[in-house]
Amino acid sequence: MTIARYVKSLASFGTRNVSTVTKTLSERQKSVVEASLTLIRERARLKAELVRASGGAIPSSCLLGVPLGHNSSFLQGPAFAPPRIREAIWCGSTNSTTETGKDLVDPCILTDVGDVPIQEMRDCGIGDELLMKAIGDSVKLVMSEPPLRPLILGGDHSITYPVVKAITEQLGGPVDILHFDAHPDIYHAFEGNIYSHASSFARIMEGGHARRLLQVGVRSINKEGREQIKRFGVELFEMRKFHTDREFLENLELGAGVKGVYISIDCDCLDPAFAPGVSHLEPGGLSFRDVMNILQNLKGDIVGGDVVEFNPQRDTADGMTAMVAAKFVRELTAKLSK
Amino acid sequence: MTIARYVKSLASFGTRNVSTVTKTLSERQKSVVEASLTLIRERARLKAELVRASGGAIPSSCLLGVPLGHNSSFLQGPAFAPPRIREAIWCGSTNSTTETGKDLVDPCILTDVGDVPIQEMRDCGIGDELLMKAIGDSVKLVMSEPPLRPLILGGDHSITYPVVKAITEQLGGPVDILHFDAHPDIYHAFEGNIYSHASSFARIMEGGHARRLLQVGVRSINKEGREQIKRFGVELFEMRKFHTDREFLENLELGAGVKGVYISIDCDCLDPAFAPGVSHLEPGGLSFRDVMNILQNLKGDIVGGDVVEFNPQRDTADGMTAMVAAKFVRELTAKLSK
Amino acid sequence: MTIARYVKSLASFGTRNVSTVTKTLSERQKSVVEASLTLIRERARLKAELVRASGGAIPSSCLLGVPLGHNSSFLQGPAFAPPRIREAIWCGSTNSTTETGKDLVDPCILTDVGDVPIQEMRDCGIGDELLMKAIGDSVKLVMSEPPLRPLILGGDHSITYPVVKAITEQLGGPVDILHFDAHPDIYHAFEGNIYSHASSFARIMEGGHARRLLQVGVRSINKEGREQIKRFGVELFEMRKFHTDREFLENLELGAGVKGVYISIDCDCLDPAFAPGVSHLEPGGLSFRDVMNILQNLKGDIVGGDVVEFNPQRDTADGMTAMVAAKFVRELTAKLSK
Amino acid sequence: MTIARYVKSLASFGTRNVSTVTKTLSERQKSVVEASLTLIRERARLKAELVRASGGAIPSSCLLGVPLGHNSSFLQGPAFAPPRIREAIWCGSTNSTTETGKDLVDPCILTDVGDVPIQEMRDCGIGDELLMKAIGDSVKLVMSEPPLRPLILGGDHSITYPVVKAITEQLGGPVDILHFDAHPDIYHAFEGNIYSHASSFARIMEGGHARRLLQVGVRSINKEGREQIKRFGVELFEMRKFHTDREFLENLELGAGVKGVYISIDCDCLDPAFAPGVSHLEPGGLSFRDVMNILQNLKGDIVGGDVVEFNPQRDTADGMTAMVAAKFVRELTAKLSK
Amino acid sequence: MTIARYVKSLASFGTRNVSTVTKTLSERQKSVVEASLTLIRERARLKAELVRASGGAIPSSCLLGVPLGHNSSFLQGPAFAPPRIREAIWCGSTNSTTETGKDLVDPCILTDVGDVPIQEMRDCGIGDELLMKAIGDSVKLVMSEPPLRPLILGGDHSITYPVVKAITEQLGGPVDILHFDAHPDIYHAFEGNIYSHASSFARIMEGGHARRLLQVGVRSINKEGREQIKRFGVELFEMRKFHTDREFLENLELGAGVKGVYISIDCDCLDPAFAPGVSHLEPGGLSFRDVMNILQNLKGDIVGGDVVEFNPQRDTADGMTAMVAAKFVRELTAKLSK
Amino acid sequence: MTIARYVKSLASFGTRNVSTVTKTLSERQKSVVEASLTLIRERARLKAELVRASGGAIPSSCLLGVPLGHNSSFLQGPAFAPPRIREAIWCGSTNSTTETGKDLVDPCILTDVGDVPIQEMRDCGIGDELLMKAIGDSVKLVMSEPPLRPLILGGDHSITYPVVKAITEQLGGPVDILHFDAHPDIYHAFEGNIYSHASSFARIMEGGHARRLLQVGVRSINKEGREQIKRFGVELFEMRKFHTDREFLENLELGAGVKGVYISIDCDCLDPAFAPGVSHLEPGGLSFRDVMNILQNLKGDIVGGDVVEFNPQRDTADGMTAMVAAKFVRELTAKLSK
Repeated sequence: MTIARYVKSLASFGTRNVSTVTKTLSERQKSVVEASLTLIRERARLKAELVRASGGAIPSSCLLGVPLGHNSSFLQGPAFAPPRIREAIWCGSTNSTTETGKDLVDPCILTDVGDVPIQEMRDCGIGDELLMKAIGDSVKLVMSEPPLRPLILGGDHSITYPVVKAITEQLGGPVDILHFDAHPDIYHAFEGNIYSHASSFARIMEGGHARRLLQVGVRSINKEGREQIKRFGVELFEMRKFHTDREFLENLELGAGVKGVYISIDCDCLDPAFAPGVSHLEPGGLSFRDVMNILQNLKGDIVGGDVVEFNPQRDTADGMTAMVAAKFVRELTAKLSK
Repeated sequence: MTIARYVKSLASFGTRNVSTVTKTLSERQKSVVEASLTLIRERARLKAELVRASGGAIPSSCLLGVPLGHNSSFLQGPAFAPPRIREAIWCGSTNSTTETGKDLVDPCILTDVGDVPIQEMRDCGIGDELLMKAIGDSVKLVMSEPPLRPLILGGDHSITYPVVKAITEQLGGPVDILHFDAHPDIYHAFEGNIYSHASSFARIMEGGHARRLLQVGVRSINKEGREQIKRFGVELFEMRKFHTDREFLENLELGAGVKGVYISIDCDCLDPAFAPGVSHLEPGGLSFRDVMNILQNLKGDIVGGDVVEFNPQRDTADGMTAMVAAKFVRELTAKLSK
Repeated sequence: MTIARYVKSLASFGTRNVSTVTKTLSERQKSVVEASLTLIRERARLKAELVRASGGAIPSSCLLGVPLGHNSSFLQGPAFAPPRIREAIWCGSTNSTTETGKDLVDPCILTDVGDVPIQEMRDCGIGDELLMKAIGDSVKLVMSEPPLRPLILGGDHSITYPVVKAITEQLGGPVDILHFDAHPDIYHAFEGNIYSHASSFARIMEGGHARRLLQVGVRSINKEGREQIKRFGVELFEMRKFHTDREFLENLELGAGVKGVYISIDCDCLDPAFAPGVSHLEPGGLSFRDVMNILQNLKGDIVGGDVVEFNPQRDTADGMTAMVAAKFVRELTAKLSK
Repeated sequence: MTIARYVKSLASFGTRNVSTVTKTLSERQKSVVEASLTLIRERARLKAELVRASGGAIPSSCLLGVPLGHNSSFLQGPAFAPPRIREAIWCGSTNSTTETGKDLVDPCILTDVGDVPIQEMRDCGIGDELLMKAIGDSVKLVMSEPPLRPLILGGDHSITYPVVKAITEQLGGPVDILHFDAHPDIYHAFEGNIYSHASSFARIMEGGHARRLLQVGVRSINKEGREQIKRFGVELFEMRKFHTDREFLENLELGAGVKGVYISIDCDCLDPAFAPGVSHLEPGGLSFRDVMNILQNLKGDIVGGDVVEFNPQRDTADGMTAMVAAKFVRELTAKLSK
Repeated sequence: MTIARYVKSLASFGTRNVSTVTKTLSERQKSVVEASLTLIRERARLKAELVRASGGAIPSSCLLGVPLGHNSSFLQGPAFAPPRIREAIWCGSTNSTTETGKDLVDPCILTDVGDVPIQEMRDCGIGDELLMKAIGDSVKLVMSEPPLRPLILGGDHSITYPVVKAITEQLGGPVDILHFDAHPDIYHAFEGNIYSHASSFARIMEGGHARRLLQVGVRSINKEGREQIKRFGVELFEMRKFHTDREFLENLELGAGVKGVYISIDCDCLDPAFAPGVSHLEPGGLSFRDVMNILQNLKGDIVGGDVVEFNPQRDTADGMTAMVAAKFVRELTAKLSK
Repeated sequence: MTIARYVKSLASFGTRNVSTVTKTLSERQKSVVEASLTLIRERARLKAELVRASGGAIPSSCLLGVPLGHNSSFLQGPAFAPPRIREAIWCGSTNSTTETGKDLVDPCILTDVGDVPIQEMRDCGIGDELLMKAIGDSVKLVMSEPPLRPLILGGDHSITYPVVKAITEQLGGPVDILHFDAHPDIYHAFEGNIYSHASSFARIMEGGHARRLLQVGVRSINKEGREQIKRFGVELFEMRKFHTDREFLENLELGAGVKGVYISIDCDCLDPAFAPGVSHLEPGGLSFRDVMNILQNLKGDIVGGDVVEFNPQRDTADGMTAMVAAKFVRELTAKLSK
């Protein structure tokens, strides 16, 4: 709340000193946004050259963090997730090989270009529209350096919209989306916010960025949700029928005829027993192995993905959910990298 | 450990493709360092113009985060501290006024230029020497935009050396240092590392960056520590004699005849009861109020400061130590801003 | 222990001042019990009139809390559960719609008449027999206001006996009981206490309040337990055979020919991974979805139910088990309300 | 938020069925409030008769819980405190004797009349004004049964206003108030709420209920706070000057010439090291012994008191702050009971 | 690290006083090892005589703790496990009967000979080779007292090698091993340590102590692991294929034609949701019931077993994993005792 | 409770097979006790020879653990403390030098002979009287190897009686005792148990083992306690008067004219803020530095000491109280070793 007052004061200074400062503030913000992309661009170049020089795996997975929390105070919950997930990926308690045998220390399998400086931009008074654009531009910077393919570390689920939009724009057409979640995130606008983490898939479907959208693990959905599902032709797989849908889901083939497959994993798709570190505890979810069984058997060309809504502030003392988010990232890497 | 293997692989690629990549790697790293400073520079400009336009407080405190953890894995402990401290500064549980009546939402009192992207540089194979230089350069970027004065959010204590070095170089002479800590951090080199968080004050004293160094709260010191203290003429105030030193310390006047006063607060100066979220629990320390009594009565021109060694991974579930670190920053802000 | 001494002193005062106080104490206690029912009666009237005025769902689920802990000190564990469960039902992290589409903010679906003031009666020296009667009377007050049907928030499992007794007395005949639990709770008397939470189903069966009793999730049972099971003709479904019993249990039809079905859910029916906040951690239990699959496919007229043995003092910091207990209540509401 | 929707639906039903229900709703609410006082009245009678029959200590301390949390969801934080404090008072880890030798199991020293059913009233749509009146009426019920004197278990700090108002009305004149707190709680209206826990002392001073108001432990106060302090002539003892005020505070004599002394202890007067289980962590506070030294040396006729703002949801796993709140209650009891 | 310095100093004293002390040190260490076995021998005698005198179950399960942690500091993680597991076995929250009806308070079912004093030997400068021998000798002391059969409480997984070696030597031939684990623990030497907890099964296979080795639950294995698996003919059951292997594993018959079956349970075979208190959190594991289903249906003569890698320092506050380890021990006891 | 049944079964076997087993059981228990002392004897010899060979500090501190918990189940609370305290003494987060400059890695300063195998004896049916004797005998074994002096790691406070008794018997006369505690531990018999941890100082005073007994930090004492204090002439220093007693206590000189000084530190002498990991949380206690100031200024010949009542099961996740207990041991070592 106090941060809101601060941003207001920031705006008011602009107003008070009309002749010089308003202009300066607006220009300065542009410079801040540009500067925010500079480091990602340089890191993408360095990493991609390394991968290309090694003549390695094509395509190759590349991490991009988006530390964005939707609430109003400076930083909250999922905004802290990207560094914790990285720490868990590389922590010494497990080796660097995925379940299907890919070695993550090989840069041809996995590289990293760091985080979009979301909080730094917000603190300069930059609003949601520009933030969303900066996220999309960052994704495009990664894709501009083949063979890198973006694997996003959220952040809350609102980031999936700019990410998918950027990917489909860069590839020139829609994708199929496999979406694991306790919720459909498809409100038209949650509490009036069209960029809400509960509305991202409404934006994606409206924009025509997805041909098919499969939602797996849903167990909290109300009337509006069901209406939107119907309106957009979403394929909904609710938990209360998972035992009958399981076989279908463990034999998916997606992405043919479109630009490929995007995979979005909201950590709350899991039962809270497996992922206590999320903002929305919704009992009755998937087990970690349930998700693996679907993911590892999926056929299709994976062009991007995200792991979102891990909230380190609600994790156990020893970071159980960080390890879960990290393993999602590790096994998604194995799917993205050939 | 696996991250070490990754950095090794990164280096080895350079070697294998000698003609092109080695050159590229080295040049690319330079570009990464430059890009790392770009956002700080732009934010410092925007914030300073705002302050100057308001004709406000001179000098003015400006936060700079340095998320550096000294251990070998990717991120650890204090490296996670800066965003948590910011969150605690602005959290809704307390108002924005310091104990002495300064209002932190006034940009003339407090601004923020974000973090030095330490982990992003390390992940590109950039070593400690260049990191330390980048920290110093970031401090100078802040000081180049009057009336901003740097207030550093650590990170571990190793960062105090490049910060103090940059400040004294920018000001053109040494300062007096008031240093709160359970340890003297004055080993010549801890486990062979001259940049260790346990050696920063040896570097500062060798470099002639401090005229006087007062260390308050010390209760873990060995033979080498006592020898270094003697060698550098440090004024040591041990906890076991604090009840007799208290009056002296609550009436300090520092910085006259030099370029001013620097204040470094290691959160473990406090008894673990007051600050459980630190890496080195050392019972028998100061109370929070003990530090306040010394700080609020200190006379002198404060030119910079830091709050270091807060380790969010060992904090209580509700962030007691984050609030402590944040209040240290708040009250230091009140001392820096006139 | 000290509370025991206090109650003793309370009794002794009665004795010492025979002529007046003994009488007074006994009469005063009666007044306290009557006063304890007053608020429940008034709330049941208000809520039922609301539901009837709306011409809504018939029957309708109505919460009644019974904060009773079986141990000897003043309050313990499950006695704290009812307010925590209510908080979790209404917490903002999830919407108000059940998995099968009922909206809980509709008073025709769910109302609440508060708690039986158990601790307040105990603190006046009122013993278990009168407490059990007051619980039953409270249940009858709810049932006297059609279309309300009682959904009980425990408390420990001892409360199921007076609740089921009251329901069957009010309805004029026995019910079928579906009972989820790690234990059969069917000792004749545990440690000499016939009202023990480990003996409630012995009381129910002796009293002829249940035609069929199905126990699901049991994995801690000794020789006496097996003998009582045989004696009372209980249908026991042990965890070690759950994989073969699953299909049968997911196609239950109960209550025909009797007054309906009562559902009792002890939170420890779940594996501790799903419900750590219970007093008796017994590994190898049901998943939350296992219970849902049985519950949502059950056919029959549900006339009442309870969720018991949630112990907030052993829950995780973020209340995982509170959310589990709340979702049990939410989905039971969906079964009770037509 | 959903509870708000529920209360709205409750109101709307009233509107829709104008002829009968609006009347019923309003009348029913009155009956609910009356029923809410019934149990307290009966318990006060029983307990007071017991005390009088024993010819014991005059006056005698009597606990009254007020489980009121100021936030908008159903129950939160301090609303859970009263049962936890009682549990801690009687827990077996310590004996029943206060530091000054009073034995709490003696009913002449300490009795209990239970809680005002705050949540039960709120759930029937009863608003803050009627709630505050019901709190005051409950206090008067206790005082109507001599020799009982009210010792209130909060709840948040908003309850101090109706409590003090009731006491002074019952006694026929103002009191002196000794108030331990990190904050002055003297905003005119916090976020527009005149019943806010941050405004209770503004209401008390406006109403003329206190002759002197001494505030001890304050370390978070802004400009409006200081202006109100000046306006009402409050005697402010800030933490930053506590070392000089200590001697004065350890020799207080209050209440002569008025109706006595009221003591209000907000648990956040303590440093978070001593009381982590509070909503507002504010480092730099009093030690538990600091409060004891002031309390045990205070001279004056104590006519009532409260212990507020203990938040069990932020306490340590083993309930350190519950023990702190309980010991405040125990030692206040020793002051109230002669 | 400091303990290492201490052991070094211990050795150096030996060197400095060559004529007398070196000899003394070496002899004294031998005496310490002998003394370490004395108490186990006496307890095994007492317990076995008791069992034999009762003419009871033959064979009978006998606990032996091995508090060995593989890391370099004095005590760590799993080294603290044995007393915690015992406490959980006998804690009052569950009865003493196993799922298959054996009563653990009957000494013919379960006895205990205490712990090998590992830390006491290490603190006297005794190295890994002698420690491993002492573990084996302790196992043989138990087996020398029929009808006792050893059930080992770890400790880390390195202890399985000396235990299995001792059992097969005592029985005069190899056994079949059923091994539950997230990892194969079959590195030739992990970080150069042939006694590493990650290498124990390489030692066992090299030594010819197992005819068949079945590994269940594996989900972290790298290239070297797969090569060793192939080299030694291990039967590997990975989690990613568990749904197809399940039926096979629930119908095992082992040990015929060899000396019997040994069962080794690493607690991290479970998903971290079920066993958070382990050093290596690896999502996607078995449920507790999965292990039970395999174990309870296994046919064969069980000659020994172990439960290892429970790390109490990472367990939940209420000891969920301690209960899991204890139930593994309880149900293994039911398999060992006839 | 179940363990009690087991011990009963153990006894009953003896009875049933009178001719042989009763004799065997009794004799076997004797052998177990003897075997329990064997390892301590050998370790004391080895360590003492090392110290003597080095011609070092005389006298020298020697750790002896006594893992005894007074409650009825197998192991509880303080029984787990000794290994945790050792781990904290040697953990890498601090160096090995005490505040007064003694280096703990020097065996002339500190050695260790391990733990009395309390639980192993109890599990063989050996009762409190023999256990107490075994503790005393262990202390004498240490003292029989000059220059070792016993420093005891508890365990609960009941162990101080056999320790002090053994020391005074070995030295041939009484000592002065400086005792830090929240409680006087001087009940004649707590709940009928003369060996209770609440009665140890009654036993010591009755036995004439102490000339003076000074109790510091007391803040929970009832009528019986005050009577016993008077009866035995104990010098009581209550917390409520600590600010006036402080100067006296910081200038103590004890032990002249008797055999020396014994120091007993119950961790609950500290305020729970400083030592949350104790069984009896009693707010208003000493700070860690308060104890240090008394201890470091004490004059006299320290002949033994103990640190008791640390309960690891209630400690913080990162072991704050373990570090406190360890530092008490470290600084006591500095006092014992010359």
